Amino acid sequence: MTGVFIAVHAGAGYHSRDRESEYKKACAEACSKAHGVLTTGASSLEAVMAAVISLENCPLTNAGTGSSLTLEGEVECDASIMDGRSLLYGGAGCVTGVKNPILVARSLLDEQKKGCLSLGRLPPSVLVGEGARKWAQDNGVELIENKQLKTDSSLKTYASHKRKLEQHEERMRRKRAKWLTVPSSKACNEEDTPLPCISEDVQDTVGAVAMDSEGNMSAAVSSGGISLKHSGRLGPAAMYGAGCWAHNWKSDKKAGVAVATSGSGEHLMRTLFAQKCAECVQTQDSGSLGVSTAFRDHFLESDYLASVTQKLGGVLALRQDKEEGSAIMLEVIWGHTTESMCVGYWGSDTHKPKVLVSRLPENSEAGKSFKMEGKVFSVT
Amino acid sequence: MTGVFIAVHAGAGYHSRDRESEYKKACAEACSKAHGVLTTGASSLEAVMAAVISLENCPLTNAGTGSSLTLEGEVECDASIMDGRSLLYGGAGCVTGVKNPILVARSLLDEQKKGCLSLGRLPPSVLVGEGARKWAQDNGVELIENKQLKTDSSLKTYASHKRKLEQHEERMRRKRAKWLTVPSSKACNEEDTPLPCISEDVQDTVGAVAMDSEGNMSAAVSSGGISLKHSGRLGPAAMYGAGCWAHNWKSDKKAGVAVATSGSGEHLMRTLFAQKCAECVQTQDSGSLGVSTAFRDHFLESDYLASVTQKLGGVLALRQDKEEGSAIMLEVIWGHTTESMCVGYWGSDTHKPKVLVSRLPENSEAGKSFKMEGKVFSVT
Repeated sequence: MTGVFIAVHAGAGYHSRDRESEYKKACAEACSKAHGVLTTGASSLEAVMAAVISLENCPLTNAGTGSSLTLEGEVECDASIMDGRSLLYGGAGCVTGVKNPILVARSLLDEQKKGCLSLGRLPPSVLVGEGARKWAQDNGVELIENKQLKTDSSLKTYASHKRKLEQHEERMRRKRAKWLTVPSSKACNEEDTPLPCISEDVQDTVGAVAMDSEGNMSAAVSSGGISLKHSGRLGPAAMYGAGCWAHNWKSDKKAGVAVATSGSGEHLMRTLFAQKCAECVQTQDSGSLGVSTAFRDHFLESDYLASVTQKLGGVLALRQDKEEGSAIMLEVIWGHTTESMCVGYWGSDTHKPKVLVSRLPENSEAGKSFKMEGKVFSVT
Repeated sequence: MTGVFIAVHAGAGYHSRDRESEYKKACAEACSKAHGVLTTGASSLEAVMAAVISLENCPLTNAGTGSSLTLEGEVECDASIMDGRSLLYGGAGCVTGVKNPILVARSLLDEQKKGCLSLGRLPPSVLVGEGARKWAQDNGVELIENKQLKTDSSLKTYASHKRKLEQHEERMRRKRAKWLTVPSSKACNEEDTPLPCISEDVQDTVGAVAMDSEGNMSAAVSSGGISLKHSGRLGPAAMYGAGCWAHNWKSDKKAGVAVATSGSGEHLMRTLFAQKCAECVQTQDSGSLGVSTAFRDHFLESDYLASVTQKLGGVLALRQDKEEGSAIMLEVIWGHTTESMCVGYWGSDTHKPKVLVSRLPENSEAGKSFKMEGKVFSVT
C-alpha cells in the first residue's frame, strides 16, 4: 500500500481574476471528493470519476451542469475515462439529458471489462447521441431533463453569443447586398469587418488524473464543448487519444502516466494530444521534459497544426516512476498555451489540496508559447 | 505532373470463396471510378471519395447501402476522409438517412479548409447522429429514407443474427432459472454453453488510398459498423487516428503516406492503428517494413490489446518516396490478421485494375498472425 494522489483542472482557457477564487474553490472541492475516495482504498478510476462528477455538478465549469450551449441552445456533453491498468477506455459523446456524462463513459468501460457480449460481439467503447442516452437509461445512470443542465449564466452567455452572431450575420448580409450594387467597393470583403470573437470568455474541458494506493493510474475528462457549436459536434473529451490517457507503470522501465487535456477541441484532436503527451511523459527522462517535448514537437510545431495561428491547449499530467524496493516518485505537471489554467492537487503529504491559477507571462501571446509548472513528490 | 495511383479495399474480415468474384468486381469498379477521376487531373481527395462512394453504393459491402444493422434493425453509418496536403480530417459518425456518408465527411473537411466560422468559432471536424444528418441537409448532401439503405441481404442477415441472439438469451434465462432452483448444478456458468458467434460472416470498413498527379496523398473509409451494434456506437471509420490517415511527402525525408484500416473497431481504436501504421510507414525504410512493424509492435504485441485473444485488423497503405530530379517510388501494401481481405489497385502503368482476395495461410489462426503483400512501382 503506497500513498495516493489526485490532480484536477477546471479547464484551460481564460479565467477572469474576478472569479479566480471560485475556480479554485471548484478545484479544491473536486480534489477533496477524490482524495476522500482514495483514502478509503478505492481505485484511481473511482477517484477521477468522483473529481469529474464534482466538476460537472459545479455550475461554474463548462461540463455537465453549466455547459456551453449549442447553436440551437441545447446542452450536449462529451466525457471519457481511461484505466491505466486494463488500458480500457469508455467515451460518451453529444449526450443529452444525463446529469453526469462521465458516468456513461464509466459504465461503458466497466462493460468492456466483462469481456465479449453474447454472440461474440465486442461491447462498445464509445457511444454518442441518443444511443448514449439510451445506454445510460439501461444501465442505471441518472437521467434528467436537459434544461436542468442549463444555468442562468449559461443561458445568459448563450443569449449574448447568439446576439453577436446574429448581428454579425446581419452586417455580412448588408455588406453583400451593397457589394451586389457597387461591386467595385469590395464591400463584401469580410476582412474589412472587425470580427467579434466569442472565444475570450470560454473555459474548456475539465479533467482529473489520479494514482491509487496500488499504484494504478487513471484519467478522465468532461466537457460541454464550445459555445454555439453545431449539434452533433464531437469534442476531444469523447475522442480516444485526444482528451485523456492512462497507462500503468511497466517493468520494462516505462513510467506510469495519466493525462487530461483541455483547450481547442479540433487542435487536441488533430494532434492526438493526450496520447502523444502520455507517450512523451512515459519515455522522456522526466515528466516535465515529456510535457515540454509534447508541447513543442506535437503541438506548437506539429505538422497537423501548421496552418493554425493560435494553437490553444492545456495538459495536466501525472508521471510515476518506481524501482523495486525504493519509494515511488510522482511528478505532477501542468502546461498550457491558453491564457490560463486552473489546477488543484492533493497527495498524501498534506492535509488539504493545493489550488492555483496558472497564467501565461504578461509578454506571452496565447496560442504561440506555453507555460509549464510542476512538482515532484516522493511517495512511500 | 506525375503518374497517379488508387488502391481500395472491400474490408478485412471473411470473404467466402463463393462470392470472391463479386467482391473483386466491387473493388475493380471502385478502382475504375477513382482512376477515371484521377486521370482528369482531379485531386486524390476526389479519387478516394469516388472510390468510397462506389463501395458504399455496392450492396455487397458493409458501408452505405447494405450496411450491417443495429440491434434495433437500423442503419447507422460512419465515414471519414483525410487530406495529406492540408492534414485536415472530416468524420461523420452514426449517420442515418444519408446515401453516401463519405460526402458528409468530405463536406466537413471542405468547411475546415475555409478557416474559422464567424465569431472565431472553429468549424467541426467530426459530427455525429442527428447533427451529422442536419449538416448533410444544410450542405446539399443527398438524403434518403434510412430504409433505402437496407437490402434484402442485410435484412436477412439481421433476422438471422437477431434470432440467434434471442435463442441465446432464452437459453441463458432458462439456465439461470434452473440455477436458482438447484444452485449446486452451476447451471448458470456461461462457459458451459457453447456460444454461437456471428462474427464469422462479417466484413468490415471499406476504404481507399490515392496519390494524384501532383503527388498529394489522401485516404478515406466508410462502414456500417458491426452487426447488432448498439445504437450510437461510434466505429473507427469515424474516429481520428483509427480509420484513415494521410500525410504528404515532406522535404525532411519523411515519406508520403496514406492508410485505410479495417477490422474489429475497438481493436483499431485502442491501437490508433491508422495513425501508428502511417507513422511506421513514414519513418521505416520501406512501406512493407513499416506495415509489418505496425502489425507487430502496435497491434499483435500492443499493450492496449494485451487482454484480447483474437486481434482482428487489416490495413491498406500507400507509401511515396521521392528525391529531387528522380522518379517517385510508390509502394502499396496490404496486410491483415483477419481470414481475408479484398483489395484492388490501379496505377499509371496498366490498362485495368488488379484485384485480389488475400487469405491467411491454411495453418494460420485469424487474430494471431498477419499476412502482408505489396508491390513497388516507379512513377514518372
